[in-house]
Amino acid sequence: MRLAELSERSGVSIATIKYYLREGLLAPGRRIGATTADYDEGHLRRLRLVRALIQDGQVPVATTREVLGHIDDDSLGRTIRLGAALWALPQPPAPDEADPSVTAARREVDAMLRTVGWESARELSTLSPVHRALVSAVATLIRLGYPVDAELMVSYAQLMYQAAVRDLDFVETFPSEEEKAEAAVVGAVLFKPVLEAMHRLAQEEESARRYGIV
Amino acid sequence: MRLAELSERSGVSIATIKYYLREGLLAPGRRIGATTADYDEGHLRRLRLVRALIQDGQVPVATTREVLGHIDDDSLGRTIRLGAALWALPQPPAPDEADPSVTAARREVDAMLRTVGWESARELSTLSPVHRALVSAVATLIRLGYPVDAELMVSYAQLMYQAAVRDLDFVETFPSEEEKAEAAVVGAVLFKPVLEAMHRLAQEEESARRYGIV
Repeated sequence: MRLAELSERSGVSIATIKYYLREGLLAPGRRIGATTADYDEGHLRRLRLVRALIQDGQVPVATTREVLGHIDDDSLGRTIRLGAALWALPQPPAPDEADPSVTAARREVDAMLRTVGWESARELSTLSPVHRALVSAVATLIRLGYPVDAELMVSYAQLMYQAAVRDLDFVETFPSEEEKAEAAVVGAVLFKPVLEAMHRLAQEEESARRYGIV
Repeated sequence: MRLAELSERSGVSIATIKYYLREGLLAPGRRIGATTADYDEGHLRRLRLVRALIQDGQVPVATTREVLGHIDDDSLGRTIRLGAALWALPQPPAPDEADPSVTAARREVDAMLRTVGWESARELSTLSPVHRALVSAVATLIRLGYPVDAELMVSYAQLMYQAAVRDLDFVETFPSEEEKAEAAVVGAVLFKPVLEAMHRLAQEEESARRYGIV
């Protein structure tokens, strides 16, 4: 398809598509004339992803470029390919190691991981920004005096694991490694608010069931 | 306790405590002299909450004041008291009703709620900003061409419901209505990043189990 059709089908303006092309977020089309190029369904899919990340997910352009680089890296095994793409997304701040709450939080997180038997997560813990984000979030609660410990986290871990199984089942429905990595990134950025809202709606439902609506 | 001890035990500076007092985020202490006042454990707990919301949760001061107003409103039943405090927190943008994706999203959300039998959530749907946030988040995915429908949401709804049961069990461990409402707000603002990180860690664990680490 020509640029005009790509714009119409994606809902992204021609000026924005040209900007994405210049920024290397979209591969050039196949040249078919001095001023025209041909784009395929792969371009359309990628354009939708770039727009989702930048416009809807508020991911910065440079970060988006880095995420796409990992998605397109055929040299990576699937865990690292998905992981690298997700790890390149904006991450919560790393914990402040001088804070004693961080030491306490790391102990509780490690105890939780041992209890639920997440051996790979433990093995990846020094590499993974997600592990650091968890320690940091738990440390904040401990610092403020709220009782968050391994036992409380364990009671949620099995639920989160079941959610992760569904997530990966969904990712596996996509045919290529590239599309699988794209789906994982879209899930992390845009399905997250869906899950969050469903969680809060479930709280309202359960609160109304226990205590009545008024 | 005096102001100095309140500051030391809370880790909040005297200047910041005075600012919170002026802004009405903390009730005045009991006057025991021309320039001194006495503060109790209730002040300490509230100070910790205010600091958690403003400093760690980045909740604006005016919003915090409104949230506290609902927490302290003894005239409200528990569902509405918890709900009002949570609904006063910053919410995601409401859906754009002119967008056809919003109509499609609302249909899928309603079908999901009917399937899982969340009757109270359906009844509250026109009132609840959480329902609007869900419709809006689903509409974004539909607009971008990603297949999010009632069936996919149903597969997550039961998990989120189980999480909500744990949340409310936790809230119920606090003695007074006021402390219950406080715990619900802290959970919404500060336990959310813990759950999110646990979810992503579960994805890493499951990915490594399915595909190996490298």
